Amino acid sequence: MMILRSSPASPFGRKVRIAISLLGFDDQTRIEPADPTDFSDSLRRQNPLGKIPVLIAEDGAVYYDSRVIVDFLDERAGGGKIVPREPRQRLAALRLQALCDGILDASILTVYEARWRALEHHEQKWLDHQAGKVTRALELLESNPPVLAAAAGSLPNIGQIALACALGYRDFRFGEGWRNAHPRLVAWLDAFAARVPAFAATKPTG
Amino acid sequence: MMILRSSPASPFGRKVRIAISLLGFDDQTRIEPADPTDFSDSLRRQNPLGKIPVLIAEDGAVYYDSRVIVDFLDERAGGGKIVPREPRQRLAALRLQALCDGILDASILTVYEARWRALEHHEQKWLDHQAGKVTRALELLESNPPVLAAAAGSLPNIGQIALACALGYRDFRFGEGWRNAHPRLVAWLDAFAARVPAFAATKPTG
Repeated sequence: MMILRSSPASPFGRKVRIAISLLGFDDQTRIEPADPTDFSDSLRRQNPLGKIPVLIAEDGAVYYDSRVIVDFLDERAGGGKIVPREPRQRLAALRLQALCDGILDASILTVYEARWRALEHHEQKWLDHQAGKVTRALELLESNPPVLAAAAGSLPNIGQIALACALGYRDFRFGEGWRNAHPRLVAWLDAFAARVPAFAATKPTG
Repeated sequence: MMILRSSPASPFGRKVRIAISLLGFDDQTRIEPADPTDFSDSLRRQNPLGKIPVLIAEDGAVYYDSRVIVDFLDERAGGGKIVPREPRQRLAALRLQALCDGILDASILTVYEARWRALEHHEQKWLDHQAGKVTRALELLESNPPVLAAAAGSLPNIGQIALACALGYRDFRFGEGWRNAHPRLVAWLDAFAARVPAFAATKPTG
């Protein structure tokens, strides 16, 4: 069995869990909860950065971060399944993943402002800086949502999986406010969820 | 000509600049400075996250973040040059890159604490949290530094390039204190610098 160290709230963990499901590895993976704030957790020995997700393969090899785990899983599944091989498609998927990981990074730093600092120390300029990244990225995506492959059985790519996780994280931590100004992304996310049962199954909690 | 938007201080920009040099693209690339804090800069239209580096190819295609740019450049150079193709080597290089990118992220958040916040709002627990990531990562790397391929003409891989940039950023922003406890990494960095002239040529300023 592979072991995935993650938490039910982690959007990067969700990305990997959806990849595991789409690639058919659910039966070969056990999820072992990890708490990045708990110093007694073995997580820091597995990944010195103390970040989740971390994947531990049967041979003991440890993989992080989420992009590297997905690369490993796609290779294990034969290659070219959710990380396209054709250079143009591949780079479009990887750039979309980078954009959506960036939405997540900015969103997480915003959540951390409240988690790590007293209210009177919150820095509005910093929060605005992070919010600007999210606003501009969602605007670009709304103007040109990615296209889910129409072919039956074709899998969404890692960029699209990352987008679903980024939008899901906005819902989870910031409420559904983003939905008003982004009707095309709302429709896109509905279509993604209809195609990918693992999306609903990994809805964040905590 | 390709255009690289970066700044002389950016460690992720340095990673890309070293890749460009190693892959022989210096003559095909123009570096155009970018200031992520300047709202009038076209950077935010090229990358809505407002982050550097960004690469703009001759056909106008825009690539970010640094990992995606390196993937594009390696593919353009024929593939398998600094991003290995053999799965085991590839994943080791990508994991090392993820670890070193994590050292950089933690280091940059530490620099940002002073840049974005009044001294009396600095949060020691947050700074300790980031320092812990760096300490544990450097400890792991010191116990087992990566091995530079001995063959004449063989290139360092992207994980090794990222490590050199991470150590260089520690020197640049935090002084040379890390060197005392990490003699094997110091020797490794000297060997890397001797093999890769672009390392000295991209020494950060600013």
